[in-house]
Amino acid sequence: MKFLSFRYQNTDSFGIVTEEGVIDLKKRFENKYSDLKSFLEDNRAEDVQINTDSVDHQLDEITFLPVIPNPSKIICIGLNYHAHVEEVGAKESGYPIVFFRVADSQVGHQGDMLLPEESADFDYEGEIAVVIGKKGRRIKEEDAYEHIAGYSCYNDGSIRDWQLRTPQWGPGKNFDQTGAFGPWMVSRGEIKDGEVLSLETRVNGEVRQRTTTDLLIFSIPKLISFISSFTTLNPGDVIVTGTPGGVALKREPQAYLKEGDVVEIEVSKIGTLINKVKADVVSPRPVRS
Amino acid sequence: MKFLSFRYQNTDSFGIVTEEGVIDLKKRFENKYSDLKSFLEDNRAEDVQINTDSVDHQLDEITFLPVIPNPSKIICIGLNYHAHVEEVGAKESGYPIVFFRVADSQVGHQGDMLLPEESADFDYEGEIAVVIGKKGRRIKEEDAYEHIAGYSCYNDGSIRDWQLRTPQWGPGKNFDQTGAFGPWMVSRGEIKDGEVLSLETRVNGEVRQRTTTDLLIFSIPKLISFISSFTTLNPGDVIVTGTPGGVALKREPQAYLKEGDVVEIEVSKIGTLINKVKADVVSPRPVRS
Repeated sequence: MKFLSFRYQNTDSFGIVTEEGVIDLKKRFENKYSDLKSFLEDNRAEDVQINTDSVDHQLDEITFLPVIPNPSKIICIGLNYHAHVEEVGAKESGYPIVFFRVADSQVGHQGDMLLPEESADFDYEGEIAVVIGKKGRRIKEEDAYEHIAGYSCYNDGSIRDWQLRTPQWGPGKNFDQTGAFGPWMVSRGEIKDGEVLSLETRVNGEVRQRTTTDLLIFSIPKLISFISSFTTLNPGDVIVTGTPGGVALKREPQAYLKEGDVVEIEVSKIGTLINKVKADVVSPRPVRS
Repeated sequence: MKFLSFRYQNTDSFGIVTEEGVIDLKKRFENKYSDLKSFLEDNRAEDVQINTDSVDHQLDEITFLPVIPNPSKIICIGLNYHAHVEEVGAKESGYPIVFFRVADSQVGHQGDMLLPEESADFDYEGEIAVVIGKKGRRIKEEDAYEHIAGYSCYNDGSIRDWQLRTPQWGPGKNFDQTGAFGPWMVSRGEIKDGEVLSLETRVNGEVRQRTTTDLLIFSIPKLISFISSFTTLNPGDVIVTGTPGGVALKREPQAYLKEGDVVEIEVSKIGTLINKVKADVVSPRPVRS
């Protein structure tokens, strides 16, 4: 099943996407759950029994929100494909590189990704996101899949100059609305544990990144085990598993995102996350004569 | 006024500490606000009008929680005093170094700080925390104080080997219950804007760190302006402003925290945050003959 978070007539909700439209789980469960995160705290995505004979909304009536709009943790992994490690000239330490995004840095499918006026170095990073469904700490690799609610596409959009001018990447990874998360979460049962997925990033239709998950340096079970060795993973937490080679920073010439660009992140068995880049113009520009 | 979050008879609440005890604001506002963060979304801490003739709880009846138990962002600043920059041999970039903690990494005043079994390199970092009271993005330095609800003490406890073995500090700054935040937030009106505060860290009574806030490389208004240039600051967000020299990592010999140690972070005009170190023993230890 495909789970999503959305806005319908100014109210935030969550539900399931079918070929006919959207089933509104907030409505079906009579407001018992305020959002997909609280729903996942009580329910295994796989086990949801719902009457799918009719839908509550049409897809064109809703606005997509980030799959989890309010995760308590968005744990991102850096340099997790050899091709990306090589293009940036990094050294491998033998440990996953972990940094965090905050919820405000995300938009949903079809939302505008904001190019801030503070920078021109806006880069895409196509990734696969894992949504946690079951709480755990010090999870063993062999038990890791049991903790997954599902998978989604993620664009770990990065403001490169702000990311790289100090040793810690925090600011460049956290400008408001520079990352994207969606369109939905495909529940774990739809994808065989360990099945190889393909990932492709396109800008205005041009392929910029392409990989498969067997090329991950640290596999999804290894990441879950490593991350949970230091922090408790809770339902609704998000792990963003890393981007392959092909980022704009390392293209010649550099090919950063500009206003009007359309970025697509396509993952097999999941779908395609599509976002348009919009300039976030705030201060009045000086008039040039 | 001193605002705190606490647990009383298995229920989480928040309120005000007076010399007589604790005023329970969740009760006084008839459950209108579930926590201090949601209270700050609607109220300026300075303006709270409450009958302080009687208190609801005695201090010894409550358990302290982190001042904000559920911040949407805990924004930490690295290397913000010259003495600490020098002791670790870092270079200054001219920009604040920003990383994040997650809520699960915190405990309240008098809570146990957990030394994980994965490491022996548990370090203290005494710091001053700023709690945001008013939402803002791209806040000017001269407007920054208007966005502050109050100040608290923070122990940015760090697992050094996990922090330093990759370029990003994420894991070592985020082991469950390794940081401490409290005992309370002193509201902005109690401290003159820009007033110099003193900060001292003690381990079992021995002074390990001592500084004053005029030695901050980036002042509190500069930090608020810088951080809000990339992310929206919301009520309840926490800025942890950086630690001075004297960390255990750089003492000779290294002087990491061990089970039973008592760490105190004292900030003038605020109070003293006290925590005991407890070993977080999980797996059965091998028996040695």
